[in-house]
Amino acid sequence: MKAFHEIRNYASNFMMWHSTYRNISFLAHWHNELEMIYAREGLSSITVNDDTYQMQPGDLVICNSGDIHYSDSAAPENSIDFLVFDPGLIDPQYRETAGPSNYIPAQKLADLKLAEPLSRLFFRLPQELKEREPYYQEIAAACLREFWYLLKRALPAQDAPQNGRRKLIDSFHQLLCYLDAHYTDPLSLESAAAQLGYSPSHFSKIFKKMAGINFVTYLSMLRVEQACAFIKKTEMRMVDISMTCGFGNLRTFNRTFKEITGYTPTQFKHLSDADSYTLTYYKRRSMEQTLAEGDSPTVINH
Amino acid sequence: MKAFHEIRNYASNFMMWHSTYRNISFLAHWHNELEMIYAREGLSSITVNDDTYQMQPGDLVICNSGDIHYSDSAAPENSIDFLVFDPGLIDPQYRETAGPSNYIPAQKLADLKLAEPLSRLFFRLPQELKEREPYYQEIAAACLREFWYLLKRALPAQDAPQNGRRKLIDSFHQLLCYLDAHYTDPLSLESAAAQLGYSPSHFSKIFKKMAGINFVTYLSMLRVEQACAFIKKTEMRMVDISMTCGFGNLRTFNRTFKEITGYTPTQFKHLSDADSYTLTYYKRRSMEQTLAEGDSPTVINH
Repeated sequence: MKAFHEIRNYASNFMMWHSTYRNISFLAHWHNELEMIYAREGLSSITVNDDTYQMQPGDLVICNSGDIHYSDSAAPENSIDFLVFDPGLIDPQYRETAGPSNYIPAQKLADLKLAEPLSRLFFRLPQELKEREPYYQEIAAACLREFWYLLKRALPAQDAPQNGRRKLIDSFHQLLCYLDAHYTDPLSLESAAAQLGYSPSHFSKIFKKMAGINFVTYLSMLRVEQACAFIKKTEMRMVDISMTCGFGNLRTFNRTFKEITGYTPTQFKHLSDADSYTLTYYKRRSMEQTLAEGDSPTVINH
Repeated sequence: MKAFHEIRNYASNFMMWHSTYRNISFLAHWHNELEMIYAREGLSSITVNDDTYQMQPGDLVICNSGDIHYSDSAAPENSIDFLVFDPGLIDPQYRETAGPSNYIPAQKLADLKLAEPLSRLFFRLPQELKEREPYYQEIAAACLREFWYLLKRALPAQDAPQNGRRKLIDSFHQLLCYLDAHYTDPLSLESAAAQLGYSPSHFSKIFKKMAGINFVTYLSMLRVEQACAFIKKTEMRMVDISMTCGFGNLRTFNRTFKEITGYTPTQFKHLSDADSYTLTYYKRRSMEQTLAEGDSPTVINH
């Protein structure tokens, strides 16, 4: 899925990427890369293929190739590390759809004698990727491989999702790709449901289950994310941004933008905070707990 | 070089081999595998491409693909680790003839902050190779790669040997291969010199420089090594062993065998010590310091 909110800047062809975020939330998405999510501080919430994990410091979540995942961790205060990498760094012939189990709590890592290697990995890799000393790619890949196989040794691979679930995940992949390509078009819940061959009510239920929020909110957030990028990085007129991003008219744009970000588009343009976009829907929701009926997100396991 | 004294048993296709030896000496040889020689205890002596290193605990010597090397460490008491591995475990496209510098003393490793990673490597690899837990090959290779590239980062690659020296090493490769294939034939110093296109006196000098011992001794040791294997593992008659191994007659066989091992062939056959062959030429030489003129080995840097 090439959603713009998921484009990473890899150094050359070496596809390993690390970042630490505070209080991050992101929309449900998937990619072929593997992802290790390591909780540093505070409490956070990560959902993978509709299983939600309440993470505590030292916990690890692994997203395998194709796993649909999202974060709902805007509050309370927390810090999470993300390590995303090409499966080829583990094995050029990597073909697994089910790797180590998705969620490994800190206590289990400690019992398996993996807490210290994991902590070392998340100390060394960011350093190697940042400093880019000679052979950092070889060294980072070797460190990663060592940990990965220690983990595989300690944890038998999770069973691949059952047929029904596999089919649901595959359908959802297709839908996310479709939305990613068409979110600026006029789209209705009915037309999206038709894409998957589901009835609108069944689709609605499944979407909430997989993405954590309802379809209309998800679509609005994709559109607002794109609008934010245009507002901050171009001199386009608001009315043009509104039309380009699929809002249909300026009035809907203004209303939706305010609902999602807490700001009018014009206020947002003049926010000096470089991280202004982190003051988004999720954060606002957590801070204000004032959710509009209808478009309100599903609060998962809270 | 496929001399029988260099045949290693690799587990399947995974070409990494480790062993710890006490007071080991071995004949000059070369192979395409890379080799890390790590001094554990006591003093030892390793020669690589005619540079001799007096090793102390914690020192590391690296033999690159094709480096001619031998050990002359029968005494005093010492213990050395050998790690031999296919260059493909470092990089499938490995083509280097000059890797990190051959000799890295313990103090330099400490200065480069590599002493602890090296010590960890030589703790973990033997364990992984011995226990063969799931994924031990991937884990061992990853550990090795990490250290290898840390070393390359810290130490600029040594210049490849100059043309003249390169040519000498290449000639010596050919000669060792030739001896390995023909040591059971009647061979004279003159015929071996002719193989390299050298005069006998020049050849004699170069052989001593590269192998640490003179040609006749080297040839005798190859023959005695083969004879020892026949004596211990077969019921062949001594006279047949003598002829098969290229000694020409039983009298020469008996005399040479005693000179090299300290035993007659019959005494040797009944030695109960499984390691009886470590009581060889080198050890005897070190213990007795009674060397016959003519066939006496060159004592290197002692």
